[in-house]
Amino acid sequence: MSRNLAVTADRIAADIDALAAITEPGRPWTRRAFTPMFLKGRAYVEKIFREAGLDTQIDAAGNLIGRRKSTGAAKGTIMLGSHTDTVPNGGRFDGIAGVIAALEVARALKDAGIELDHDLEIVDFLAEEVSIFGVSCIGSRGMTGVRPVEWLERTADDMTLADGIRQVGGNPDKVFKRTDIKAFLELHIEQGTVLEREGIDIGIVGAITGITRIEILIEGRADHAGTTPMNARYDALSAASSVVLGIEQIARELAAGPSYFAGTVGEFSMEPNAANVIPSHVRMLIDARAVESTVMDGFIASVAALCVETAAEREVTIAEPRKVSEAAPTPMSDRVTDVLAAGAARIGASSRPMVSGAGHDAAFLAKLAPAAMIFIASKDGRSHAAEEWSESDDIALGAAVLYEAVLELDKQ
Amino acid sequence: MSRNLAVTADRIAADIDALAAITEPGRPWTRRAFTPMFLKGRAYVEKIFREAGLDTQIDAAGNLIGRRKSTGAAKGTIMLGSHTDTVPNGGRFDGIAGVIAALEVARALKDAGIELDHDLEIVDFLAEEVSIFGVSCIGSRGMTGVRPVEWLERTADDMTLADGIRQVGGNPDKVFKRTDIKAFLELHIEQGTVLEREGIDIGIVGAITGITRIEILIEGRADHAGTTPMNARYDALSAASSVVLGIEQIARELAAGPSYFAGTVGEFSMEPNAANVIPSHVRMLIDARAVESTVMDGFIASVAALCVETAAEREVTIAEPRKVSEAAPTPMSDRVTDVLAAGAARIGASSRPMVSGAGHDAAFLAKLAPAAMIFIASKDGRSHAAEEWSESDDIALGAAVLYEAVLELDKQ
Repeated sequence: MSRNLAVTADRIAADIDALAAITEPGRPWTRRAFTPMFLKGRAYVEKIFREAGLDTQIDAAGNLIGRRKSTGAAKGTIMLGSHTDTVPNGGRFDGIAGVIAALEVARALKDAGIELDHDLEIVDFLAEEVSIFGVSCIGSRGMTGVRPVEWLERTADDMTLADGIRQVGGNPDKVFKRTDIKAFLELHIEQGTVLEREGIDIGIVGAITGITRIEILIEGRADHAGTTPMNARYDALSAASSVVLGIEQIARELAAGPSYFAGTVGEFSMEPNAANVIPSHVRMLIDARAVESTVMDGFIASVAALCVETAAEREVTIAEPRKVSEAAPTPMSDRVTDVLAAGAARIGASSRPMVSGAGHDAAFLAKLAPAAMIFIASKDGRSHAAEEWSESDDIALGAAVLYEAVLELDKQ
Repeated sequence: MSRNLAVTADRIAADIDALAAITEPGRPWTRRAFTPMFLKGRAYVEKIFREAGLDTQIDAAGNLIGRRKSTGAAKGTIMLGSHTDTVPNGGRFDGIAGVIAALEVARALKDAGIELDHDLEIVDFLAEEVSIFGVSCIGSRGMTGVRPVEWLERTADDMTLADGIRQVGGNPDKVFKRTDIKAFLELHIEQGTVLEREGIDIGIVGAITGITRIEILIEGRADHAGTTPMNARYDALSAASSVVLGIEQIARELAAGPSYFAGTVGEFSMEPNAANVIPSHVRMLIDARAVESTVMDGFIASVAALCVETAAEREVTIAEPRKVSEAAPTPMSDRVTDVLAAGAARIGASSRPMVSGAGHDAAFLAKLAPAAMIFIASKDGRSHAAEEWSESDDIALGAAVLYEAVLELDKQ
């Protein structure tokens, strides 16, 4: 890349490599929240925050915050951040790229001698990934006042979540909700293949998807695999296979439409699962993602019709598909996405509107403040795997977009 | 039924009810081999064998034998039998009907004052069902000299199979192979719906199916369910669903042909089986049954072609289907099936040729002697389930066919 950017790719690469080296040995790259390795990683992050001239603190929710005070009376806080915890075996860039890019913005501002009218905060949110306590986005939920109180009683590794938050330096009993945030920005790896395939630098995230999980139960009949003629069977697996292919077809058609959609049968199990018995029961769980409720409703209706049709055709029983969980989509701030797109254009980076198919800390911050995200490319779309990779030049380009956006937001 | 038979349906019903009452409480009908409940059932069977005038003994393989000596120097042994052990929760008639029907033949001969030129043996074979030791047909394999020696080392419930055989009264170290059997006959419930649907009394079994188990492994890619576009996925579950439906189609076409065939995907499991991850691996196990090797070979070739086609279409990896086990089909004796069919005609019972889709003790006895089986109807085809049911009138009709066949075989 020959662009003349305010940020430095080599510094970003060095920090990401240094954090990657802090991993459970033989299990790269693993630094799960609430484990000793995570605390070691946090100590490194705090050190580099300080080296960048930031004042550091752990807030009550357990988030590590590096603050750069405004010169005069602050007009409020511009916040940038992501997370440094990982899934098991899971990736050097997911979250980490966002924290280091945010830090690089602070360093570039310092290098350029630029003072802001707003306080600037760089945040490493606690436990964005599903943690040892079985729940995710603990820090961003805490900061935005939506972390369920009962979660504090959850236990893992002989401690409660309350203990875990205390151990990282937080204070779980102190409920609070920030009111000073003027805007929140998060850079994240795409975890998909859109940018790579289209050769585009920056994804401007217009919305974070809603997720609905739908359970389908199919009941056939467990007859003898040898003595039951092929034309006298009620095979739950065959019926389920029809349903899986039907769901895929419906999801493909919706995804080819104007609005984002993804549908996946992620869980599938069968009974009795014995070599010589015709399958009698199948349970499957669909993960369906959309940013428009009409699209999601259309999907659910089509799947329900598919189930009725398959049940009739195969003479098996299929229960009405049941929603087991539902998270609403989160639109990003149009004003902030406009600022990000303009920033990308200013530095000559190509960009396109996108939808985030994964959840992120930004989805919670959006409850408090105008928020938006940018994506940078993931090699081959791999994520939550050791193979996860993003180029430091791409991360630097994203950091430069954040830098431009911070300057613009500071003026507003 | 108004037929005037030599056998008595009420006696058969009374014995089957008495054995059914010997079950693990709250878990009808359970009397697994090598458990105390099985020994209690055996004691009842020995008692009724003796009441019918039979001399009883446990042979070295652990089979309970009731013998009726011929009057003069015996011309050999005509053997009738089946088994009284059950699967867990498994059925009042599977095996039991065959032992009680065989006993009823002995009682009817006694009632009629008929002496035979052959010794007659009624056998309750040990552990026909898959036992606590994980293997089946222990008694009939033992009697025919094909029980693998290493099986004796298998352990369950703190004992070896050798201990278990000793506990029922056998002597596992004494290897032997009967040479005196002139013919073997077994009555069994159909465990299918053919006789019931066609309204036919007796199935004359011409062959016991061969069973080949075939493993298929499919490898896709575990990508993020939210961030991976629908048209950039390598979903192992979708590919597997195509394969399952393709296997069903191939099996249906073969089953519609002139020779018996059944194919079932009985085992199916998936990884990572996480709601938000696209399935990456599927393993399935096919249970394929045929009595002609050309039919089995044709099935395997078609499945292999299906896998190649699906792998190419879906851009996933499917390993060459692998045979994990193979048991050859066992033809029954034409001479003995002719005698059975003639016996059925003599008493006015309708009959049809059939194939046994399940394995039976007769498959082992056929290695030593001319052997054949008859089936009687199973209500709704249910088996290996609490709902398993056969009418005592139907069992009595089958016993009457055995009675006719014994008289005829004794003359030959």
